[in-house]
Amino acid sequence: MPVTQPTDPADSAAALWDALLPARVRVVEVGPRDGLQNLEAFVPTETKVALVDGLVGLGFDRIEAVAFVHPLAVPQMRDAEDVMRAVRRHAVRFMALVPNRRGTERAVACGVDMLNFVISASESFNRANLNQSITESLAALAQSMPPAREAGIAMRMTLSTSFGCPYEGEVDPGRVVAIARRGVEIGCGEICLGDTTGMANPRQVYHLFRELAHVLPTGTERAVHLHNTRGSGAANLMAALQAGVTTFDASIGGLGGCPYAPGATGNVSTEDMVAMLHGMRIDTGVDLPRLIAAARAAEGMLGVHLPGQIIRARGM
Amino acid sequence: MPVTQPTDPADSAAALWDALLPARVRVVEVGPRDGLQNLEAFVPTETKVALVDGLVGLGFDRIEAVAFVHPLAVPQMRDAEDVMRAVRRHAVRFMALVPNRRGTERAVACGVDMLNFVISASESFNRANLNQSITESLAALAQSMPPAREAGIAMRMTLSTSFGCPYEGEVDPGRVVAIARRGVEIGCGEICLGDTTGMANPRQVYHLFRELAHVLPTGTERAVHLHNTRGSGAANLMAALQAGVTTFDASIGGLGGCPYAPGATGNVSTEDMVAMLHGMRIDTGVDLPRLIAAARAAEGMLGVHLPGQIIRARGM
Repeated sequence: MPVTQPTDPADSAAALWDALLPARVRVVEVGPRDGLQNLEAFVPTETKVALVDGLVGLGFDRIEAVAFVHPLAVPQMRDAEDVMRAVRRHAVRFMALVPNRRGTERAVACGVDMLNFVISASESFNRANLNQSITESLAALAQSMPPAREAGIAMRMTLSTSFGCPYEGEVDPGRVVAIARRGVEIGCGEICLGDTTGMANPRQVYHLFRELAHVLPTGTERAVHLHNTRGSGAANLMAALQAGVTTFDASIGGLGGCPYAPGATGNVSTEDMVAMLHGMRIDTGVDLPRLIAAARAAEGMLGVHLPGQIIRARGM
Repeated sequence: MPVTQPTDPADSAAALWDALLPARVRVVEVGPRDGLQNLEAFVPTETKVALVDGLVGLGFDRIEAVAFVHPLAVPQMRDAEDVMRAVRRHAVRFMALVPNRRGTERAVACGVDMLNFVISASESFNRANLNQSITESLAALAQSMPPAREAGIAMRMTLSTSFGCPYEGEVDPGRVVAIARRGVEIGCGEICLGDTTGMANPRQVYHLFRELAHVLPTGTERAVHLHNTRGSGAANLMAALQAGVTTFDASIGGLGGCPYAPGATGNVSTEDMVAMLHGMRIDTGVDLPRLIAAARAAEGMLGVHLPGQIIRARGM
């Protein structure tokens, strides 16, 4: 029989590789917002609340439960106030997406714990989604800061389509960095880069986050929001972690994407990513068995087939 | 408007990260073998041949078209000779899975270009799959070398369940390394580590391949065979590349897995991985647009829903 061989203790490259990875990361569950907002049929308020309540207490750093956007722009989110009033506020921070001062005021009135202001890094995408230029969106961010500051609520800036735009293709990394800097000047303490349509690759993710680390003031938190549309979400997360990112968004069961293209996933699946990180001995604070149970429950609750892998793996 | 910021040219960490990645990798398409062998219904020989012919000329280093195993053990592969006789042998090497001397002789008679001898790193899994101890399987490998050598056909050893076993759980990395060394002593020029049930994590993949690099003789090729059962296949591929692996198996459309668990995928999807690598400017030699077309054609040909992501992404 073969015998056990000892590991080479002198492998300095391997020690360096280990040192690239963080000991602990923060998980932001965005399924109730980013996952649901792409569903065609309106999800009843009580179902949304049940979905969120099932995620409370699992150990997330934050849950993004709702978006305070115009009800005609995103009808799915028209009950944002009702959802926020009803959810169990316990042991987790609630983040809410806002696109302008009006949304910020609504979110503040609901007592959210953190605001997430979204601007696209691509002019065409920003125009298509918000009917604004990037300059106008940055002005809207500046106008949203006073009510946020007055309420003492931290503001994150998410830069969507940071790694590619379905209209423009490649996005200039210099532009992403410049908008991020402007966001910090305006008052955002956290900058999240979003791969909105899953076009990123790990090399791009690594380098853009390294560049952000050099350019942004010390203490600015960097976060990543990845989609798995082209099957590289897990690799992109690895690259972001290696670039020093320690906060990432994910969606329970991979909820999201286009309902008309089965298998074309949205966000990376929270439980798949948490399981991978735990396997690597990276702490997330999340209770994995309960998270997997919550993902399976979400499928039943919403009546959809979720693209997450672990929920279908045998023996899990 | 924000202006473009220059990249920091003095980022030595980023240069080191880039240096971890290879400029070129070899892709081994294993869909016709690993993908098909899990399908319950027998796929007609002409369909298998059409599937393989659609993969010829796309730029793969190799195609694993068949397994020369006992027809009662794997009825799906009972027409291996017929398939090998009929496929278009052009501009690609054909690899065949073999479990013993009898299989090796059948493969040699068909004029395959490379042999792939599979042994499990877990006693329980080897026993369940081959009804042999690992020691017996290593003896079978030794008995298979003379006909291979006589025909001048190179032998790869694939160590399945190298990163985890559904029966035993964790697999001792020292045992994996020891069996790999024995395989090289017997005459295998390439050692492939297989994550048969998708249990690997990137840290484990990186370290096990680093260890192999230290222990195996210079010139021994290392390859990786990954499954995406738990959604970490792409991240595991990244880790393998960073550990210096430059040959990987993949399956068109992610063909494989359990037909009774939709979404529980088999091998990593060839086109998703090739697209990710091309995005990172890593050359594969594979024609991506034709590969995506072949994956879509495979779905129709086989009448199955494939878990690959890119084939469902819009605009691809």
